[in-house]
Amino acid sequence: MQASQQFINSNKERFLQELFELLRIPSVSADPAYKGDVRRAAEWIVEKLRVAGADNVRLEETPGHPVVYGEKLIDSTLPTVLVYGHYDVQPADPVNLWETPPFEPTIRDEKIYARGSCDDKGQVYMHIKAFEAMNQSGELPCNVKFMIEGEEEIGSDNLEVFVKNNKERLQADVILVSDSAMIANDIPSIESGLRGLSYLEVKVQGPNKDLHSGVYGGAVANPVNILCQMIASLQDEFNRITIPGFYEDVEELSASDRAAMAQTPFDLEAYQKELDIAAVHGESGYTTLERASIRPTLDVNGIWGGYIGEGAKTVLPSVAHAKISMRLVPNQSSNKITELFTKHFLSIAPKGVKVMVTPHHGGEAYVMPTDHVAFQAASEAMEITFGKPAIPTRGGGSIPIVALFEKELGIKSVLMGFGLDSDDIHSPNEHFGLFNFYKGIETIPYFFQKFKQLHS
Amino acid sequence: MQASQQFINSNKERFLQELFELLRIPSVSADPAYKGDVRRAAEWIVEKLRVAGADNVRLEETPGHPVVYGEKLIDSTLPTVLVYGHYDVQPADPVNLWETPPFEPTIRDEKIYARGSCDDKGQVYMHIKAFEAMNQSGELPCNVKFMIEGEEEIGSDNLEVFVKNNKERLQADVILVSDSAMIANDIPSIESGLRGLSYLEVKVQGPNKDLHSGVYGGAVANPVNILCQMIASLQDEFNRITIPGFYEDVEELSASDRAAMAQTPFDLEAYQKELDIAAVHGESGYTTLERASIRPTLDVNGIWGGYIGEGAKTVLPSVAHAKISMRLVPNQSSNKITELFTKHFLSIAPKGVKVMVTPHHGGEAYVMPTDHVAFQAASEAMEITFGKPAIPTRGGGSIPIVALFEKELGIKSVLMGFGLDSDDIHSPNEHFGLFNFYKGIETIPYFFQKFKQLHS
Repeated sequence: MQASQQFINSNKERFLQELFELLRIPSVSADPAYKGDVRRAAEWIVEKLRVAGADNVRLEETPGHPVVYGEKLIDSTLPTVLVYGHYDVQPADPVNLWETPPFEPTIRDEKIYARGSCDDKGQVYMHIKAFEAMNQSGELPCNVKFMIEGEEEIGSDNLEVFVKNNKERLQADVILVSDSAMIANDIPSIESGLRGLSYLEVKVQGPNKDLHSGVYGGAVANPVNILCQMIASLQDEFNRITIPGFYEDVEELSASDRAAMAQTPFDLEAYQKELDIAAVHGESGYTTLERASIRPTLDVNGIWGGYIGEGAKTVLPSVAHAKISMRLVPNQSSNKITELFTKHFLSIAPKGVKVMVTPHHGGEAYVMPTDHVAFQAASEAMEITFGKPAIPTRGGGSIPIVALFEKELGIKSVLMGFGLDSDDIHSPNEHFGLFNFYKGIETIPYFFQKFKQLHS
Repeated sequence: MQASQQFINSNKERFLQELFELLRIPSVSADPAYKGDVRRAAEWIVEKLRVAGADNVRLEETPGHPVVYGEKLIDSTLPTVLVYGHYDVQPADPVNLWETPPFEPTIRDEKIYARGSCDDKGQVYMHIKAFEAMNQSGELPCNVKFMIEGEEEIGSDNLEVFVKNNKERLQADVILVSDSAMIANDIPSIESGLRGLSYLEVKVQGPNKDLHSGVYGGAVANPVNILCQMIASLQDEFNRITIPGFYEDVEELSASDRAAMAQTPFDLEAYQKELDIAAVHGESGYTTLERASIRPTLDVNGIWGGYIGEGAKTVLPSVAHAKISMRLVPNQSSNKITELFTKHFLSIAPKGVKVMVTPHHGGEAYVMPTDHVAFQAASEAMEITFGKPAIPTRGGGSIPIVALFEKELGIKSVLMGFGLDSDDIHSPNEHFGLFNFYKGIETIPYFFQKFKQLHS
């Protein structure tokens, strides 16, 4: 991979400037107001894939945001790698907390600050540039297919349909995904698992209009008080989730697996300092690493109701809302959990209110065996560029689509991510290290090389 | 009061058009954006008092919104009535739920729809017009003083200072207030008591920034979940407030008082139908009327935190907020309850979060003896215009300033209100019946007449 690495070395600045172009497009998939920008981002990816040398590059329409497809099939006897990623990003709210505008990429302390810099535009672009390097240097070891979607942040519903309708075209020996994090820049790691997700929105309707809290207070159910009581009751004093059947299918890790996990480098003090919290908080009987990866959770992602303006308004609100999501672990079914939540939440509503539950989106958890050839190839590739073997970890986040790939295409995904948990993805001031961006581009060609060797 | 009543009769349309002018001024005291409008409303009142014949009318500056003062002192041997009211209004949010614009008064089904139509511009204006009628007809039976403030909806803090600094000028034999409701248009009533208020804002700070709920969910305290748990814990399964010492000073009504209260006309079915609720909800062991008047309450008036935009965002929020108010009953001290709440709320915060409590405003409960001459005068005045005696009731709302009047000036207030609980004050589509507006103007002169007679 000499020539490829040289090509990368001599084009670093151009690669970065191109990424900046992509980061300037506010492709927020959750908000209809950005529909046009999401499409612009897709068209931009199409153009760059063509320039990099991909064939049959096209923008595949869906009922929602388009999927970008492209391929380079050099020899049918060689293994095929399907690269998956997404060009859509999370909303930038709260925008006022950004030090520099979310869609105006800025370099500070060797880091690229912008929404999507790490999740996932920066990591998607590593693949396009690594492909360009291998292709231009005549060192491409495998066939490549690209599938870059625009709805990962809102559940990948349309990609699911696209996958089901294109099983032939998407056939490959492995799916390569860079949409996750390593432990640290000097501690490379690869996620051997991901959590699933069930995301719902709830509405508690009290009286048919806002009321005066003096005239009606104490006599009429206050939907905000009730919503707080209902949410609070979903967890017990050990921070275990109280929804009947919730833990039924949870895969309990063996003592030896937990012991192995305990070996993962982790500095609790630094963790608390970084977040400015006096203590961690979670399910009794589990470590912080376990709570954030192998255990299911229930978090309120947003809540609103009543008067939230300046000053004081003595109102008894008519309605209260909350967005609630649960992270799931292997064996838990997203649909089943969504049903269990809905059934339970409706059942605990007092007579004085009406409750509505609306599922947003979900996805299944995923496990990648560490002895899989693709996992080994990724591990060896990182060992070359980082100078030390990658540690297998279990990720707390969700990439619902990888479980679907396995189900529909029968292909495993290797999660070779180059971000860091401290990159503030989904938060203000999201960033991605220049070190990480370039290290990713350098590592990917070695993955292709190792995968070709190990696969045969 | 012949001439006065004739004057009223022949000027009804003008009175209404003038009130419309006042209702068009968006004098929202809670929102700094309306500061100029609040002042315009004050200046408008000044002008109308002068035209009605009041002397020494002036706009008294305060650090906040101004107080309007005016007087007509005809004979130092006659009793003096101090009329109190407020020209500021509640915010109009949620504006989208108004059928017609909140600051464009509209008549529908014999009712004036506008923010402040009942609370309290409409009722304040009844007094100005009743005074004009008595004055122009040479039938004014007592000396009159007017004190109309612009901060009732935000706690009357500056009026409190004004009152303390003007005890001489404000001397009177009774304070007459129309800022409350009757049972029904055919069931006149007078409030013999009001609830106090303690209003606070709480902030629960978790991590120093929004986090990815997959990466950190389950391991870091979620401030929204925590806030819900803390709020839920403030009430037990009997809907009793759990703050230590909260009920210590609560005045328990005697069995006979409760029996008398039970005689008040009340239709539970109509009440639930009007609000479209399947059941009422409140403290065990008390009736709806009791829960809404003689028992203290705790209501969340507003809550917000995390992502509340369109779609789904898998964020673990950094902070959560709530506005919480407690209605208090006689003998409970607003300051003491505010302290008890703050102390308790801070004490129940888990280690993983930081909690801040900020008091907004408060006020003491108030009781008016039904055998007080002013209460008798009001009762007899209503009997003349409604054709039946007024029923004494206990109001659930708060007019913090009346307790202060008694403390600072040693003067009792009579709460002769002409609104209805169904007028949607503090809600979208606030309204005030034309019947009520005119009936108030007609009744007030008789109060002056009766008060003069009974006082001597």
